[in-house]
Amino acid sequence: MSEVKIHQASVTAPVNIAVVKYWGKRDQKLNLPTNSSISVTLSQSDLRAHTTASCSASFGSGDSLILNSKSEDVTNTRVQACFRELRALRSNIESSEPLLPKISHLPLRIVSENNFPTAAGLASSAAGFAALVFAIANLYKLPTSATDLSRIARQGSGSACRSLFGGFVEWQLGNLSDGSDSIAVQIAPASHWPTMRALILVISGAKKDVSSTSGMQATTKTSEFFKRRVEVVAPANIELMQSAIMNKDFKTFAKVTMSDSNNFHATCLDTFPPIFYMNDTSRAAIRIVEDLNRTLNRTVAAYTFDAGPNAVIYYQEEDEKQVVGMIKGIIGHVEGWQARGDTISPLTYDGFDERAIELLQNGVSRVIMTGIGEGPISTEESLITNSGEPLRN
Amino acid sequence: MSEVKIHQASVTAPVNIAVVKYWGKRDQKLNLPTNSSISVTLSQSDLRAHTTASCSASFGSGDSLILNSKSEDVTNTRVQACFRELRALRSNIESSEPLLPKISHLPLRIVSENNFPTAAGLASSAAGFAALVFAIANLYKLPTSATDLSRIARQGSGSACRSLFGGFVEWQLGNLSDGSDSIAVQIAPASHWPTMRALILVISGAKKDVSSTSGMQATTKTSEFFKRRVEVVAPANIELMQSAIMNKDFKTFAKVTMSDSNNFHATCLDTFPPIFYMNDTSRAAIRIVEDLNRTLNRTVAAYTFDAGPNAVIYYQEEDEKQVVGMIKGIIGHVEGWQARGDTISPLTYDGFDERAIELLQNGVSRVIMTGIGEGPISTEESLITNSGEPLRN
Repeated sequence: MSEVKIHQASVTAPVNIAVVKYWGKRDQKLNLPTNSSISVTLSQSDLRAHTTASCSASFGSGDSLILNSKSEDVTNTRVQACFRELRALRSNIESSEPLLPKISHLPLRIVSENNFPTAAGLASSAAGFAALVFAIANLYKLPTSATDLSRIARQGSGSACRSLFGGFVEWQLGNLSDGSDSIAVQIAPASHWPTMRALILVISGAKKDVSSTSGMQATTKTSEFFKRRVEVVAPANIELMQSAIMNKDFKTFAKVTMSDSNNFHATCLDTFPPIFYMNDTSRAAIRIVEDLNRTLNRTVAAYTFDAGPNAVIYYQEEDEKQVVGMIKGIIGHVEGWQARGDTISPLTYDGFDERAIELLQNGVSRVIMTGIGEGPISTEESLITNSGEPLRN
Repeated sequence: MSEVKIHQASVTAPVNIAVVKYWGKRDQKLNLPTNSSISVTLSQSDLRAHTTASCSASFGSGDSLILNSKSEDVTNTRVQACFRELRALRSNIESSEPLLPKISHLPLRIVSENNFPTAAGLASSAAGFAALVFAIANLYKLPTSATDLSRIARQGSGSACRSLFGGFVEWQLGNLSDGSDSIAVQIAPASHWPTMRALILVISGAKKDVSSTSGMQATTKTSEFFKRRVEVVAPANIELMQSAIMNKDFKTFAKVTMSDSNNFHATCLDTFPPIFYMNDTSRAAIRIVEDLNRTLNRTVAAYTFDAGPNAVIYYQEEDEKQVVGMIKGIIGHVEGWQARGDTISPLTYDGFDERAIELLQNGVSRVIMTGIGEGPISTEESLITNSGEPLRN
């Protein structure tokens, strides 16, 4: 009885939250952006995509992808683009090193799990595509650099390219029409500013109204402000943010983070019909961050919102007792504090906006305390059995 | 026993709701705007400021102003500017016509009542200052044109200049530094397009967070998008709107009204710290207008939001049964339908956004059905007694 070999590799990849946002594509097919963006990679201890890539002649005729125990469509052009590029790289190696096993043509079976809600504006597709690309690259033992892999992950989901690195990451716009210079680079590793922390207020786990891709298309077509964002606002913010990161200047980091988030959402509102990702609870989170900074009389916290209502609040470890303490004072009753916030004492919050407090108390469903983290890593933990079946299905 | 004469004149003035918004001053003192704006004057049958201006040697030493039974500060520079300009005009006439009574130096007593909530984003200051200026002009029997009075009312509250006319009104930016060419002109009288109707959804009667004046200052200082609005967006919308009005082209009127409102609120969101006037209920009103236009397969309704959460929905009389019928189907339980909407049958609204329906049902406190209307008019109804006392105090 012969046994057909099952090749496999498992990885985890991080979520990243942009501080200068990506919004708008100059090329739909290649996911080429209209402006550069910068993000902070968050710790995989708290948020991660876990992916096992496997291939085997025993897998029958087609590729397959199982995400959170659900079969996904692999004929999707974005998934296909990643498979195709990675297979081509493996195939090249196989041609030049004849002793290597020929696996590039074998059916792929990808199994992936997120430990956070999908498509709720928590950058799940970024972590997911970064993990998918990194896992297949490991499966194929590709000698490819993270920047080269970022070029592939970008074709899966634009912001996924930034999840190939830890720390502070810039996705450079590039200007070539084939996208070969539209890549992610690390501005600084997590160790450069390890005290950078993030508190996520999960405001709605519901699927968003408008997908990022169709939202961007509508903005590009209808918003007069969009041109100004692309030509003036985003480039200026990129420059300010690069030096804020290099100088560990939290005040500038915070100011640019908040105003770029507002500018991005203003662009969405200027779209026709208008796109709304923030709700009244999101706006209450903005007021509370303003109250925090006013109360402590310096900039200790910065809000940012992706294409969804959740607030991500950046702060520094040295201010954790006060920043997180006051927020815990307001919403200590919600889920999520036990993971990391057990030692933080709830503080009073005199003079905070009362309407905002009430909205947060009713509208936040859980918190996630996390911090800056590393890029994708290999793991021994596999999501498939020895016979190639998904572990949970 | 001698009786000291009390001179008096009473007027009512209308609310106007801009379809190309005024936001930003190039001169704070003179209330000179950074862009031209266009509004629709609403019927005084439904919304009006009612003002009696009186003057008498018996009124003691100072001027006084009573608004909605409450004494207001007349040392306010905006009120002072209006008093000063009107007195100067009267004084000129008195000098040239010696037989006229000398009343320009007498203390002024102004009594005013709005029939709608003050400072809730219902343009109360516009109607109020238009009525104040028009009442004093009548008291002084000034032969001044409405356009000349608009120049004075503008110094009280910018948008008040547009309430000096009925119908469709443009406040022209002007370019002189003394403001003499920053005036209101009528684009078309109400009779040009008498079927223009407005349904107001009163979403909150609360005082707004940020006054228009301080909001505008913050925007001018901090928003990069503001420049684009002033230089490109507003001028283009003015031109489109002028011809939409002349051609009674509701489709264009609606498109420009909605996108200019969104553009204005996007500018507020791009301000730092961000300014929010719309809330979740306001956004639900946007979704319902989109649903109405989609369901009826043509543009039958247009939303606009001033510096507050209330929605003003413009539509044409011929579509009233359907537009108002469906909205009445959703929020038939709230106050305000009895005034004008008694004959409108509530209709079903299949396929409308369920979340938006729920938000409207919980967040709208009353409706006001109204239409296009005339400029200020004189009235016999006085708000002071024969002895010069305010009727209600």
